Amino acid sequence: MNFAFSSTAQSYINRLQDFMAEHVIPAEAVYFSQLKRGERPWVVPPVMADLKARAKQAGLWNLFLAADEHNKVHGAGLTGLIGLSNADYAPLAEIMGRSFIAPEVFNCNAPDTGNMEVLVKYGSAEQQQRWLQPLLSGEIRSAFCMTEPDVASSDATNMQATAIVEGDEVVLNGVKWWSTGIGHPDCRVVIFMGLSDLNPKAPKHLRHSMVLVPMDTPGVKIERMLSVFGDQDEPYGHGEVSFTNVRLPVSSIIAGAGRGFEIAQGRLGPGRIHHCMRVIGAAERALELMCKRAVRRVAFGQPLADLGGNSDIIANARIAIEQARLLTLKAAWMIDTVGVKAAMSEIAQIKVVAPNVAQMVIDQAIQIFGAAGVGADTPLAAMYANARILRLADGPDEVHRSMIAKLELKPYRNSL
Amino acid sequence: MNFAFSSTAQSYINRLQDFMAEHVIPAEAVYFSQLKRGERPWVVPPVMADLKARAKQAGLWNLFLAADEHNKVHGAGLTGLIGLSNADYAPLAEIMGRSFIAPEVFNCNAPDTGNMEVLVKYGSAEQQQRWLQPLLSGEIRSAFCMTEPDVASSDATNMQATAIVEGDEVVLNGVKWWSTGIGHPDCRVVIFMGLSDLNPKAPKHLRHSMVLVPMDTPGVKIERMLSVFGDQDEPYGHGEVSFTNVRLPVSSIIAGAGRGFEIAQGRLGPGRIHHCMRVIGAAERALELMCKRAVRRVAFGQPLADLGGNSDIIANARIAIEQARLLTLKAAWMIDTVGVKAAMSEIAQIKVVAPNVAQMVIDQAIQIFGAAGVGADTPLAAMYANARILRLADGPDEVHRSMIAKLELKPYRNSL
Amino acid sequence: MNFAFSSTAQSYINRLQDFMAEHVIPAEAVYFSQLKRGERPWVVPPVMADLKARAKQAGLWNLFLAADEHNKVHGAGLTGLIGLSNADYAPLAEIMGRSFIAPEVFNCNAPDTGNMEVLVKYGSAEQQQRWLQPLLSGEIRSAFCMTEPDVASSDATNMQATAIVEGDEVVLNGVKWWSTGIGHPDCRVVIFMGLSDLNPKAPKHLRHSMVLVPMDTPGVKIERMLSVFGDQDEPYGHGEVSFTNVRLPVSSIIAGAGRGFEIAQGRLGPGRIHHCMRVIGAAERALELMCKRAVRRVAFGQPLADLGGNSDIIANARIAIEQARLLTLKAAWMIDTVGVKAAMSEIAQIKVVAPNVAQMVIDQAIQIFGAAGVGADTPLAAMYANARILRLADGPDEVHRSMIAKLELKPYRNSL
Amino acid sequence: MNFAFSSTAQSYINRLQDFMAEHVIPAEAVYFSQLKRGERPWVVPPVMADLKARAKQAGLWNLFLAADEHNKVHGAGLTGLIGLSNADYAPLAEIMGRSFIAPEVFNCNAPDTGNMEVLVKYGSAEQQQRWLQPLLSGEIRSAFCMTEPDVASSDATNMQATAIVEGDEVVLNGVKWWSTGIGHPDCRVVIFMGLSDLNPKAPKHLRHSMVLVPMDTPGVKIERMLSVFGDQDEPYGHGEVSFTNVRLPVSSIIAGAGRGFEIAQGRLGPGRIHHCMRVIGAAERALELMCKRAVRRVAFGQPLADLGGNSDIIANARIAIEQARLLTLKAAWMIDTVGVKAAMSEIAQIKVVAPNVAQMVIDQAIQIFGAAGVGADTPLAAMYANARILRLADGPDEVHRSMIAKLELKPYRNSL
Repeated sequence: MNFAFSSTAQSYINRLQDFMAEHVIPAEAVYFSQLKRGERPWVVPPVMADLKARAKQAGLWNLFLAADEHNKVHGAGLTGLIGLSNADYAPLAEIMGRSFIAPEVFNCNAPDTGNMEVLVKYGSAEQQQRWLQPLLSGEIRSAFCMTEPDVASSDATNMQATAIVEGDEVVLNGVKWWSTGIGHPDCRVVIFMGLSDLNPKAPKHLRHSMVLVPMDTPGVKIERMLSVFGDQDEPYGHGEVSFTNVRLPVSSIIAGAGRGFEIAQGRLGPGRIHHCMRVIGAAERALELMCKRAVRRVAFGQPLADLGGNSDIIANARIAIEQARLLTLKAAWMIDTVGVKAAMSEIAQIKVVAPNVAQMVIDQAIQIFGAAGVGADTPLAAMYANARILRLADGPDEVHRSMIAKLELKPYRNSL
Repeated sequence: MNFAFSSTAQSYINRLQDFMAEHVIPAEAVYFSQLKRGERPWVVPPVMADLKARAKQAGLWNLFLAADEHNKVHGAGLTGLIGLSNADYAPLAEIMGRSFIAPEVFNCNAPDTGNMEVLVKYGSAEQQQRWLQPLLSGEIRSAFCMTEPDVASSDATNMQATAIVEGDEVVLNGVKWWSTGIGHPDCRVVIFMGLSDLNPKAPKHLRHSMVLVPMDTPGVKIERMLSVFGDQDEPYGHGEVSFTNVRLPVSSIIAGAGRGFEIAQGRLGPGRIHHCMRVIGAAERALELMCKRAVRRVAFGQPLADLGGNSDIIANARIAIEQARLLTLKAAWMIDTVGVKAAMSEIAQIKVVAPNVAQMVIDQAIQIFGAAGVGADTPLAAMYANARILRLADGPDEVHRSMIAKLELKPYRNSL
Repeated sequence: MNFAFSSTAQSYINRLQDFMAEHVIPAEAVYFSQLKRGERPWVVPPVMADLKARAKQAGLWNLFLAADEHNKVHGAGLTGLIGLSNADYAPLAEIMGRSFIAPEVFNCNAPDTGNMEVLVKYGSAEQQQRWLQPLLSGEIRSAFCMTEPDVASSDATNMQATAIVEGDEVVLNGVKWWSTGIGHPDCRVVIFMGLSDLNPKAPKHLRHSMVLVPMDTPGVKIERMLSVFGDQDEPYGHGEVSFTNVRLPVSSIIAGAGRGFEIAQGRLGPGRIHHCMRVIGAAERALELMCKRAVRRVAFGQPLADLGGNSDIIANARIAIEQARLLTLKAAWMIDTVGVKAAMSEIAQIKVVAPNVAQMVIDQAIQIFGAAGVGADTPLAAMYANARILRLADGPDEVHRSMIAKLELKPYRNSL
Repeated sequence: MNFAFSSTAQSYINRLQDFMAEHVIPAEAVYFSQLKRGERPWVVPPVMADLKARAKQAGLWNLFLAADEHNKVHGAGLTGLIGLSNADYAPLAEIMGRSFIAPEVFNCNAPDTGNMEVLVKYGSAEQQQRWLQPLLSGEIRSAFCMTEPDVASSDATNMQATAIVEGDEVVLNGVKWWSTGIGHPDCRVVIFMGLSDLNPKAPKHLRHSMVLVPMDTPGVKIERMLSVFGDQDEPYGHGEVSFTNVRLPVSSIIAGAGRGFEIAQGRLGPGRIHHCMRVIGAAERALELMCKRAVRRVAFGQPLADLGGNSDIIANARIAIEQARLLTLKAAWMIDTVGVKAAMSEIAQIKVVAPNVAQMVIDQAIQIFGAAGVGADTPLAAMYANARILRLADGPDEVHRSMIAKLELKPYRNSL
């Protein structure tokens, strides 16, 4: 048992922390002022291009791509693949999670990371060349169109959108929403998931397909951008998108029709580590902000840190974050050593615990900040909204708890 | 002991519920579409004027003004004063709290209600004529400028803004923020609170004054509008406002210099009943929405209501709301029967419990709604933000808990 | 709406509080020292007889019997029936709940109260004369045998014990446990519930009977006394009792064979008010003890009350108790005014909330007392065990939450 | 980073699990029936001697003694010292914690382990020969007398007992309580802590001494045995002990007068790992029992596992236990690698989190078991009492949270 990071991880941690302190954190205010300057904030603040260039130069680019994914890249000329294990990447995701703008700086932001992983693992040479290359280089952005407004997406078999193969074309129809990143000016492609086999008696995990859809394909329409607690989360945004008789060559289907579920499953393990570590990073930053405020802000003649239960809140936040981090690191290590399937309970556990811990800690930080905490002068409100969504995105808490209980009870049911 | 509402209250409850169902709830969508139509949503959606006219006509206007405040109105010609007790008004506030737009419809929205109460109780005949009349008639809106960015306003003695009497003028300086309603196009006047006695050794509750400041007075500047979780809460909004050498006649001071604290205290009791009952109304509506969704939305072959712990969540929400409501009603009854001072613990208790219950229940409703819950298609996200702010506005939870504990421990300390 | 107790209730409250302060609280230590004196603590400490005599003389006897139950007493000569409403008795139950020994002093302890109510409502003249009279006079004690070890008693239809009518006899077989009070030296009779109709297709609420069983009937055997967290709860105790071919005349059946469920239902409403108010009394005493300790005990140079989050704990305890009390009082008032059936949700709500609040507050009081809190020098450990059992007795929390949710969702399901 | 146990640890884990399954778990019922057979259960059930002999033979003896403590043993002939690191011993402590009787079987029970560690680290050759040898061989038991009834022992500087050096004697006076294990028939010696320097201005961590006191020394008197929730926890028990002019040679003082605090500190780190891992073992067993019950017990036609929120409870228990275990293992690893001082926050964190998690999980297991859960037919009630005490023993939660917050805030305070 060894709780120290590997020397590879530690070296990246150091470099990333330095880069964050020197470049990213100071750029946050610039970024948001550039973003909000015009009437329509769906722009890429110029400072982002600078940061990306610096990160590339510093070798802090595409850090998320796991070691074993290297060999699966068909396309020639993919450079900048570092090949960290999940356990090594996890602390880097946490550091990036401390700033809202950081993940994109390092080309490590969702949903592009998940989409790139899908293309690395399942993409054809042609798909990789057309879409993976510009995604890896950071030229374009992408979105993932899975969730639908009219059905409970927590149960993926509810999906209603269709991707029907007609001759050498695939025809897409349906409405998706909460397609994150689709508002970004550089978003050029989405991965669309839909039913290819309409027979309700067909094996339920062989009925869906994933299709690469260029944003400018006729029939694709962003109906509206959705808000989260009133915030549109620009310039990425969350869109409601309709697909009306969208026709694409069958070569747009990833890995062939009927493999949508298989791909979705493969996408989950590492993606959850990323999400969880980022949100732990946010919680850690919230705790840091809370502590700074608590020692400086004075009421009734004492710093807030010395009033009432505030020190208990700080202690409990520390305990909760430490525990969530250790569990997430263990889940990452299990993915690396025994695989996603054997780590299913742990992966579900972190998906419950990390966003809930973050929501709690950030809420308490807001409380210590008072009204300033809900406004835009600190990153707390945005962090809070993000942690809150994460309790729904990629499966609500309830679905994960249900999975954990199912796995926990299995041996006892089997021995009845 | 009798838990039934008085016949007066019951009659208003019935009329108000009918009015809400017939006019207000159906107008919500219209209101928001009118509000968001233009580039700059700081407008009064036309439907609001219609609703207000109807409410006036229906005799559902200014319901908040308590019975014993009647006699204090110096100015002649004040009509439409109904004179309900706090216990009778409380259930009406709850009903209004079910819709974001309702309180204004009935001229019962904060901070105008608090400002009107101040003017009724402490305003001169001239002040009442100039400001109370148009506020009571709903022609103008007002704001309350107390909280400051640079000090912990939970401890009111921290206040830094000044209201210095110089001859027959009072001169205001300072920066205030979270001045709710100041963005409203009809906001014409604010009540500003500041230090009039700069001697730190003066009795600390006799140093402040409240001053009526017309919005167009030179030196008053809205520096920016603040957001709550990214939402600007238009058309009311929360402003950061600077006061730079703002000069007004001394007759603008309410009740005379040095009485600011006394007035602030008097403002608190009924206002907290209003806030708490409204937020309980929001919690009740969230529970209703959650139940409707839970019986209709299907996942894994069952309505959400029948899955996992959802029925426990619904049961716990019901229990929590019932209890918070009873406690708030009791506090209202105590204000009516034994007065604010004897009800201090109860008033502090409801200020802790009602917003926390609402935050919890609304959060759970959001969870049942999934992604739809954080967006703008349901009132849940806005309700959530409002409940969250209420844990800070008018004193954070911590200050109220501290007060409750102080009162609880007093007899034991005294008998040491 | 009126939160003041009726003058009748207030007069009893005053008298009961005086009696408690003068006689009961000072007798607690005496009682326990008399109880634990011998090797076998299944005795009635002599001080109890004195206290009972005084209570009778003071007219504080059988206070629990509700007003509307008077007329149902067939038997002549029942004296000492006071006839309070549930709302009037509730605060008296709370006061008694402050001391472990108090309920028996006033002949108001479970399960005798429930058994007496059953006999008042459903007992024949003969049954009333034989059992109700000596129970009302406090000469004998009784037990209630419903829960069984081998099945989940939360679902009463699981019951396995039988009460088969054979000619003019009824024959009982089965094993019951957690029969509270059966260890008491004065326990002379139990009410046994069992299946009389073995046909599984018979209407499931018409299959059971309740039978009065003298303790000395052949075939009745106390197999063992059960402990609660290691405590045997003498001299009442909780027994495991076997019934083996116990034969009794059919006149021992209460209200006739097949009416067991109906009687059980009727027993529930007021009994839950009693349980809940008593446990609220315990919580209130725990808070009082906690406050006293917190202002006196010093650590790190300060009274515990001024350290860390202790004042928050006290404030939250106060809030929780106030709310649980108000909800229970409302449920009592509803039973009085609209009946048990219309108050079903409220009755279930208090059964969840009151014991949980008590468990939480007592646990926190224990924490403030340190090791002394878990020992026998304060009443806290016994109170804790009692609150904990109450989350199981008379239906576990889960069953009540399920009922509340069912009632809450009913209108929404009906309108689908 | 590596979450796998070392091969040494894994080998002991396997052997210990086998031994537990084969010998300890089956002996639990025997042990308790032997214990409760007589009138006075302060006996050692004969089965314990058998189990100890087997454990010794299996090389599963004194596993707790950490590697670096070997060299400090002055006395010759100490055998059976295994020398595991804290990280390697931790999973073994967890396994032992699954059974109430297991720790003694392996000579790894508190407070003997802590006392042995003190003697290994600080004992003179003579002290080691006289007391450490028979403790290591399991011939005798010991107790630790620190907590006092009249002062808050959470603040150790409150201590009132005295250990005054008079010539070549040390004279002890004072009253101690919650001296665990002092009721055991084999308890021969206690470590007593008292003030040697009565000058209140002396350095507060140099005023106390620890003294080895044979139980049969004149002036030592067990005043009474204390109960925990009504249970006396035989045959160990918790005693209130008076020391009245107890005279011993100065050679009885451990490491010399004035070093009591230093020794107490050194005792803490590993001891907390032991306590926490044992209580996690109890929580894990409670979860196992809860799952077994939940799949077997049927109500309303379904196993409890499929009813309401029970699966959520199971999932949350799994998450909480995993996290508490990881944090405790990390703290153990830190003690091994960076030392107790650098691990102070983590050691305090586990002391808060592990007993609280255990208390929660065991309480929920009790709820699933219904009335059976609070009785003596399952180990749950005893486990619960033990977890509850652990929130007080060795410093209440509050003191540890305060330490965590202090360490967390330190860098921010320093940079003010």
